[in-house]
Amino acid sequence: MLKVGYPDAIGVELLQQFPSGIELVPVPATPAHEIALDVWIAPPVAGWGRKVWPHLRGVKTVLALTAGTEWITEVAGPSVTVCNAQGAHNVSTAEWTVGAILAMLKYFPLYRDLQNASDWRGRSRASQDYSAIHNDHRAQYPPILQEELNGKRVLIVGYGDIGKTIERYLAPYDVELTRVARSARTNPKVHSVSELDRLLPEAEIVILILPHTPESHGLIGAAQIGLMQQGALLVNAARGPIVQTDALVEALNSWRIRAAIDVTDPEPLPSDHPLWKCPNLLITPHVAGSTPQFSARAMRIAAEQVTRLISGQQLINVVQQGTATVTA
Amino acid sequence: MLKVGYPDAIGVELLQQFPSGIELVPVPATPAHEIALDVWIAPPVAGWGRKVWPHLRGVKTVLALTAGTEWITEVAGPSVTVCNAQGAHNVSTAEWTVGAILAMLKYFPLYRDLQNASDWRGRSRASQDYSAIHNDHRAQYPPILQEELNGKRVLIVGYGDIGKTIERYLAPYDVELTRVARSARTNPKVHSVSELDRLLPEAEIVILILPHTPESHGLIGAAQIGLMQQGALLVNAARGPIVQTDALVEALNSWRIRAAIDVTDPEPLPSDHPLWKCPNLLITPHVAGSTPQFSARAMRIAAEQVTRLISGQQLINVVQQGTATVTA
Repeated sequence: MLKVGYPDAIGVELLQQFPSGIELVPVPATPAHEIALDVWIAPPVAGWGRKVWPHLRGVKTVLALTAGTEWITEVAGPSVTVCNAQGAHNVSTAEWTVGAILAMLKYFPLYRDLQNASDWRGRSRASQDYSAIHNDHRAQYPPILQEELNGKRVLIVGYGDIGKTIERYLAPYDVELTRVARSARTNPKVHSVSELDRLLPEAEIVILILPHTPESHGLIGAAQIGLMQQGALLVNAARGPIVQTDALVEALNSWRIRAAIDVTDPEPLPSDHPLWKCPNLLITPHVAGSTPQFSARAMRIAAEQVTRLISGQQLINVVQQGTATVTA
Repeated sequence: MLKVGYPDAIGVELLQQFPSGIELVPVPATPAHEIALDVWIAPPVAGWGRKVWPHLRGVKTVLALTAGTEWITEVAGPSVTVCNAQGAHNVSTAEWTVGAILAMLKYFPLYRDLQNASDWRGRSRASQDYSAIHNDHRAQYPPILQEELNGKRVLIVGYGDIGKTIERYLAPYDVELTRVARSARTNPKVHSVSELDRLLPEAEIVILILPHTPESHGLIGAAQIGLMQQGALLVNAARGPIVQTDALVEALNSWRIRAAIDVTDPEPLPSDHPLWKCPNLLITPHVAGSTPQFSARAMRIAAEQVTRLISGQQLINVVQQGTATVTA
């Protein structure tokens, strides 16, 4: 009987969708002894999963509950088949992205700080910040206390499922969208990432939602930020190391660009890291995907994968094909 | 020649759209002497306009740069024709509304506070807040650090131009939208405000975007909040006095509902007001309409009105028909 391990903290209501004829094995965060498994549904937090792995024996297939699987291939080696949970994060991450863009254009971080200070009149600071970040020092009347998303030129870097969902959410704002992905495509027009430097100067908002690969590592550095417009907004909903952190800190502290980031490099961000104190920045601590619906979607995908395994069908979302074989 | 007064702080580039054959008169914030005008383009801030009014003579028509005109009819009396700038705020206010909803569902106020404290690990508080506000104390794994807008049941109270724009922006999230306005309509279905109490219990998000009138004054009180779901989100993008402030403070402090408000009662909110310190609340200090594009749109509407006046056409957006007559 196929032994399928799952993080024991997962709510039992999410287990009902698994097929019968398998053994579901709860795996604690710190197993007291070795656990024999054929399939491991890995916890969605890398640190947690890394501690569990040494206690597992016989694992041939790892089903991730997340889109990123870097740590799994690293600890489990090449013999194991690894599948990600592509699709589970589309809605949550795309919603975070549009929410973060609006939050920055509406100066919500500033207004939250004013709320904490019980300060209504401080709203004039929005006007000053607007003038400073856009290097526009004309007398503005009425004062500018918000910006609009409507009509903005948006560059989306990465055009997978999440990127397409972001595009759908942005459509009603009549943005001028330009798409970039690893390889150029048509219908709709997608530019190759090799054209990035030519496209960056045209964008008011740059969204990163591409996978972290050797090619995308450090993709946005000082040179790329230098090509961006004064006051442009960089949104990182992908992975921290795609942006060179030192270059980002320098660009923010010199009021060159603005940023909203759910991911950092390093992660977690140490409390003494200079990024925390940069102006014109919203940091969320890698939370964009973590909604109640995400768990349900990710576990449904895992249950479907197990059904494929016991009926001899091909797995989907395979990011590493291993050599070991699961026998049902 | 028609004398048209405008706030002298307005950027000169916004004056170019006015027709020739009129006299454009800059009106300072504190006029040193009386100013004779036929038409007054009132400043968008009530306090400012109230101070200017006693210095004006001969005004027959007031063109507001805002949607709300309560203070103008109050100071100028019934003999003057008053027009609002309907349409100028649609995009900015609708964007604020969707941004504020996403900010609350994504716990951005909490994450902003954590950012200010250089605290990554504190993100577990989102999970605790989620459990507390939804009164759902099941063990949640993975932890819930965000919520989704997708599929939520939304009640929109007020279905004018801004309400329709909000609906358009919410459409891609597959929300279940219910519409309420002063009078019931069909195609699309709009319920009468008399049905509000029956509809409130079904909504997860309640958006107020109706005009402030004697009928809407205090519309949302303790009884209405009592009908709302535990943890529902109340969004006020309309006017402060539509919500009874004491009832809102009480509901927030007892973790009954959440709120995002751009308007308060009183306004400005005094620094010692208990609303500032309520949990599960985002306050922005009446800024939703104040974007660069708003000024341009509002002044374009004013210029079109002046063109109508000098060519003998009917004014649009008339909220009070006065008895005085403008002669071009």
